[in-house]
Amino acid sequence: MRNLQDVVLHKIIYNSLDDGRLLNVCWDMLMMRNQESMKKWAAVFLIIAIVIGIAMIPQLNEYGAEGAMTAAENDFMYEKSIHILVMLLMGFGFLMVFVRKYGYTSVTVTYLAVALSLPLYMLIRPYLWGPAADISIANISMLLFAEFAAASLLIAIGGTLGRVNTHQYLLIGALFTPLYALNEWILFSGAVIPAGAFLDTAGSITIHAFGAYFALGMIIMLASKKEREIEVETSKRSNEFALLGSAALWVFWPSFCAALVSVDKIPLVAINTILALCGATIATYVFSILIRGKIEVADIANASLAGGVAIGASVANVTPGWSMLIGLIAGAISVFGYTIIQPRLQKATGGVDTCGVHNLHGMPGVFGGIIALGLVASPSWQLAGVIISVIFAITMGILVGFIASRLGKKETLYDDKEEFIVPD
Amino acid sequence: MRNLQDVVLHKIIYNSLDDGRLLNVCWDMLMMRNQESMKKWAAVFLIIAIVIGIAMIPQLNEYGAEGAMTAAENDFMYEKSIHILVMLLMGFGFLMVFVRKYGYTSVTVTYLAVALSLPLYMLIRPYLWGPAADISIANISMLLFAEFAAASLLIAIGGTLGRVNTHQYLLIGALFTPLYALNEWILFSGAVIPAGAFLDTAGSITIHAFGAYFALGMIIMLASKKEREIEVETSKRSNEFALLGSAALWVFWPSFCAALVSVDKIPLVAINTILALCGATIATYVFSILIRGKIEVADIANASLAGGVAIGASVANVTPGWSMLIGLIAGAISVFGYTIIQPRLQKATGGVDTCGVHNLHGMPGVFGGIIALGLVASPSWQLAGVIISVIFAITMGILVGFIASRLGKKETLYDDKEEFIVPD
Amino acid sequence: MRNLQDVVLHKIIYNSLDDGRLLNVCWDMLMMRNQESMKKWAAVFLIIAIVIGIAMIPQLNEYGAEGAMTAAENDFMYEKSIHILVMLLMGFGFLMVFVRKYGYTSVTVTYLAVALSLPLYMLIRPYLWGPAADISIANISMLLFAEFAAASLLIAIGGTLGRVNTHQYLLIGALFTPLYALNEWILFSGAVIPAGAFLDTAGSITIHAFGAYFALGMIIMLASKKEREIEVETSKRSNEFALLGSAALWVFWPSFCAALVSVDKIPLVAINTILALCGATIATYVFSILIRGKIEVADIANASLAGGVAIGASVANVTPGWSMLIGLIAGAISVFGYTIIQPRLQKATGGVDTCGVHNLHGMPGVFGGIIALGLVASPSWQLAGVIISVIFAITMGILVGFIASRLGKKETLYDDKEEFIVPD
Repeated sequence: MRNLQDVVLHKIIYNSLDDGRLLNVCWDMLMMRNQESMKKWAAVFLIIAIVIGIAMIPQLNEYGAEGAMTAAENDFMYEKSIHILVMLLMGFGFLMVFVRKYGYTSVTVTYLAVALSLPLYMLIRPYLWGPAADISIANISMLLFAEFAAASLLIAIGGTLGRVNTHQYLLIGALFTPLYALNEWILFSGAVIPAGAFLDTAGSITIHAFGAYFALGMIIMLASKKEREIEVETSKRSNEFALLGSAALWVFWPSFCAALVSVDKIPLVAINTILALCGATIATYVFSILIRGKIEVADIANASLAGGVAIGASVANVTPGWSMLIGLIAGAISVFGYTIIQPRLQKATGGVDTCGVHNLHGMPGVFGGIIALGLVASPSWQLAGVIISVIFAITMGILVGFIASRLGKKETLYDDKEEFIVPD
Repeated sequence: MRNLQDVVLHKIIYNSLDDGRLLNVCWDMLMMRNQESMKKWAAVFLIIAIVIGIAMIPQLNEYGAEGAMTAAENDFMYEKSIHILVMLLMGFGFLMVFVRKYGYTSVTVTYLAVALSLPLYMLIRPYLWGPAADISIANISMLLFAEFAAASLLIAIGGTLGRVNTHQYLLIGALFTPLYALNEWILFSGAVIPAGAFLDTAGSITIHAFGAYFALGMIIMLASKKEREIEVETSKRSNEFALLGSAALWVFWPSFCAALVSVDKIPLVAINTILALCGATIATYVFSILIRGKIEVADIANASLAGGVAIGASVANVTPGWSMLIGLIAGAISVFGYTIIQPRLQKATGGVDTCGVHNLHGMPGVFGGIIALGLVASPSWQLAGVIISVIFAITMGILVGFIASRLGKKETLYDDKEEFIVPD
Repeated sequence: MRNLQDVVLHKIIYNSLDDGRLLNVCWDMLMMRNQESMKKWAAVFLIIAIVIGIAMIPQLNEYGAEGAMTAAENDFMYEKSIHILVMLLMGFGFLMVFVRKYGYTSVTVTYLAVALSLPLYMLIRPYLWGPAADISIANISMLLFAEFAAASLLIAIGGTLGRVNTHQYLLIGALFTPLYALNEWILFSGAVIPAGAFLDTAGSITIHAFGAYFALGMIIMLASKKEREIEVETSKRSNEFALLGSAALWVFWPSFCAALVSVDKIPLVAINTILALCGATIATYVFSILIRGKIEVADIANASLAGGVAIGASVANVTPGWSMLIGLIAGAISVFGYTIIQPRLQKATGGVDTCGVHNLHGMPGVFGGIIALGLVASPSWQLAGVIISVIFAITMGILVGFIASRLGKKETLYDDKEEFIVPD
C-alpha cells in the first residue's frame, strides 16, 4: 500500500539486522560521529524510551497501597483522565493543524510529546515527592498528574511550532517534564510554599502560564530573522481542523477543571467552567469584530478557550455568575493579546509565538492566578507562587531554548516536507 | 502570527480605550445612528452577556440544596452532560460544515448559540419553574436542561443556515431560548398538561420537533427569491467534516437519551438508542439507493440519526427489537423527507431548509411523539402535547423570523467572506 | 438542498409507492431476475434488518435478570461502551479515510458494518451461550460484547478496503459476525477450551488477530492483477482525517482494555494501556526514520496503536514498566510489518492489504497472545487458543472471500464515484 515498495527495503534495515549496524548507529551518534541527524536522534530516543521502561519496572507496582481510592472515586477520575487525553491528542494536536503545510508534524509532535512526557513524569514524581507522591497502580491519580504535565508541554511547544525539528521537540519534552515537575513540587508539596497556601485548582498558573512563559523563553533564544519574514500560511482545511481541535478542548474542559476536586464539588466546578467558556466565547466574537472589523476564525478557535484557562485557579471557589464574568474578561484579554499585544511582543522578543500561547495561556493564566488573590488566606503566598512560576518558566525556557538551538536548524519553516514523506 | 500586523492596531480599539468610544458605539447603536452593523451588534451582545453574568450572581449559589443528588448520581449525569456538549459543538457544529464556503460561520455560530443559550436558559428556568426548577449548584441537572435547549436552538438554526448574518443568529438564540423554556414548562411542569401525562423521555417533540418546526416558521418569513436560485455547494472536504459531525452525534446519542432516566433503566435506554440508530442507518442506505439510484452521502450523515430522534419519546418504554424497527421506519421517513418531501415543501414555503432539519428532526420527531400514544395512560394529553408544541413552534418561528428579517440582510449566501477574514 | 430537485423524484419511488414495485424489486432480486445489483442488494439488507428486528422482539426483554450488575457497575461499563463506540465510528471510520477518493465509502461502510453487526451479534449470542450469555436489558455487558464483534469486523474490512462494493461489505459483515461469535465461544465458553484457561483480557487474539487473519484469507480470494497495479492515492486532507481517526483510537483505547476487567483493576489496566501506546508511538517514530529515512505519517497513524493491540491479552497481568516495553516492541513489529513484511506478503498472497491490518492487528495481536504464554497456568491451552483462532480466521476468511467474490466486482478501485453521488 501507499507505494511502500519504493520507499521500503531501504538498505539500513537489512544492514541493521545483518551487520548489527543499529548498534553502530547508536554508538556513532553518542560519539557525534555520524551526520545523519534524524537517524541519530531517533536512536537516542529509542534508548531513552527503553531506559524509562526498564526504570519503571521496580516502580508503580505496589498494588493496594495505603490511601487507595475507592472504586467509585477511581472511576470518576478515570473518566476525567480519558477526557483530558482527548484534549491532549485531539484538542491540542488538531488546534495546531492550522499551519497549512505542517499538519503531519503538528499531530506527530503531539503524539511524541505525550508519549514521552507521560511515562517520564510518572518516573520522576516519586523521587521528588517521596511517600506523598500518590503514585500507585491502585490509584488513577498518577495518570492525571502526568497528563497535566503533558498539557503544559504541548502549550510550550505551541509557541515554537514550525521552526524546530521533531527531535528538538522531543529533547524539549525530555527537559521540560522534570522542570515542570519541579515547579509543581515547589507550589504544592509544602516544602517551599506551605501546603494549601497556593490556590490553583485546575492549573491557571501551574499548567497554563508555566507552559506559555516557558515558550516565551524558548522563543527568545530560538528567534531568527528568517522566521519574522515568513508568513504562517493557513487554509480553509487547516483552519477547520483547528476549529475541531478547539471544540474538543472546549467540550472536555470541565473534566480538566473537575479532575482533582472533591466529588461533591464536581457540579459547581463543571457549571463554572462551562460558564467561563461561554463568557470567553461571546467576548471573543465581540472583540474580534470591534478590533479587526471582521471575525478572525483563529480568534474563535483560541480565545474562546481563555475562559477555561482563567477560571482554573478559582473554579472551586466562585459562583456561576462570577465565572461568566471572569470568562468574559479572559476572552477580551486573549483577543487583545492576539491583536494588540502580540505584534509588540514579537518586536520585543525578536521571535514569533506561532500559536499565540501567550495570548491564550499566558495572560489569561496569570489573570486567573491573580483573581485567586482575593480568595486565599494568604495573598502573599499566592502572589509568590505566581511570580515564582512565571520567572522560573521564562528562565528555564531560555535555557532549554538555548540547548535546543545548538542541536539543529529547521531549513524549511512551517513545512512537513523536510522530515515527512508528503504526497504531491 | 497570521499577518496580524496588517489587520491589527485598528483605530477603533485605541479610540474605544482612549475616548470611551465603546460606550458611544453602544449608545449609537441603541439610537440606530451608526451604520456599521457588525460592530453595533457585537456591542449589544457584549452588554447582554454582561447582564446575564451579573443577573446570575445572586442565583445558583445555594450549595447543598434540598433534594441534592448523590455523588454517584451526579457523576453519572456529569458524564452524560459532557457527551451532550460533544454533540453540540463537535456534532451539530461539524455536521453543518457541509456547506463548502461556510465552514467558519457554521462552527462559530454553533459556539455562539451554545455560549448564549446555556447561561440564558439557566437564568430563565428558576423564574418559570419556581422551587421545582431543580436548579442548584449541588446538582448537575440544570446543565443538562440547558444543553437540551441549546440542542433545540442548533436544530432551529440549521434550517436557515447560510442565509442570515451572525448577529441575527445570536438574536434568534436570545429569543428562541425563553420560548423553548416556555414550551418545555407547558409540557412538563404540571401547570398546563398534568405532570407525567406527556411522555417524551429524550425530547422527540420537546427538543427535536420543536426546533425543526420553529425553523420552518423562520424559513417562511426569511424566504427570498435569491435563495431558491443559488445552489448550496459542497465538497469532499466539507462533506467529510459533516460525516465526522454525524459520527460524533451517533456515538454519543445514547447519553442524550439516557441523561434523565433513572439509573436502573440506563442499560435498556442505551441499547434501545443504539438499535434505533442501527435501524435508521441501514434504512438510510437502502432508501438512498432505492430512491436515488446511488448513495447520497448527506443522507448517510443525516438520516442515519433519525432513529435517535424518533426513539426519544419512548426509549425507556419499549424493548430492543421494537427499537430497531422504530429506527428502520424513522430512517426511511427521513430519506423520504430529503428526497420526496423537501422539494415540495420548499415550493410550498418558498424557502430553503438548508440542513433539512424537517427531514431529520421534524418528521422523525413527530413520528416518535406519536408512537408514544400507544404507551401512555392518556393518549389525548400526549396528542395535545405534540400538537401544542408543533403549532407553538411554527407560530413563534414565524414571529422570530419576522423580527430577524428586519435586522439585516446577508449579501453573499452560503459564504464566510462577508463576515470573516478568509485566507485565499 | 444540495440540488435535490435534480436527483430526487426518481421514478422508482413513485412506482414503488404506486404499483407496489418495491415488492416486485425484492421478488425479482430473490429470483435473480433483475440486473440492477445495488437496488437488489439494498432490498435484501432491508429485509435482513427487518427480520433481525422482529427476531429480537421476544429476546432481551427480561428486565431484572438474575446476576444483574449494580447501578455503579453498569455505569462504569456504560462509559466504556460509549468510548468504544467512538473508536468504532470515529476511530476506525476515519482512520480508513486516508484513501483520497474513497472517504465517503470508508465512513459509510463503517456505519453499515456497525449497524449490522451490533444487532446481529446480540441476536446470535444467546443461542450460542445459553443461560451464560449474559444478555439482558438489565446489564450493559451485552452491548460491549457486540461492540467487540463490530471492532473485529472493521479490522477485517480494512484489509480489503476499496476493492469490493458496499453490498459485499454488508454480506461480509453478515457472515463474519456469527463466525466471530463462534470463535469467541470456543475460546471462552468453557465448552472447548476450559473456562479461564485462555488469557485475552482485551482481545489481542479474539478481536485483533482474528479480524486481521480473516482479512488475510479474504485478500487471497479477492486478489486481482488490477489491484496490484493501481496505487492507493492519499492526500494531505485524507491523511489528516486518518490522523484524527488514529487519535480517537489512541485516547479511548484504555476503555477498550478496561471494559471487562474487575473494577479494582481499572487503574492498573488504564495505566498499562497508555504506557503501551506511549512505547509504540515512540518506537514508530524511531523505526519509521531508521527504515525509511523520513517519517511516513501512515506509520504514525497506525503503528502507534500497535501497543494497544499487543497489551490486550496481558493488560491486567503485567506492571507499567513491562507495558511500556511491550509497547515499544509492538510498535517496532508494526513498522517492520508496514515496511519490510507487507511487500513480501503481497507478493505471496497476490493481493493488497489496504490498511495494513496484518501489520497493526495481525502480528502485534499474535505477539500479545504469545506474551500471555508466560502468565497463564497452562501455556498449552493459551497456545491452542492462538493457533485455533488464527487458522479458523484464515480459513473462514478464504470461504467468505470466495462467496463475496461471486457477488459483484468493483470497477473503479479506491473510488467513491461508482456508488456515491460525488460533488465535482
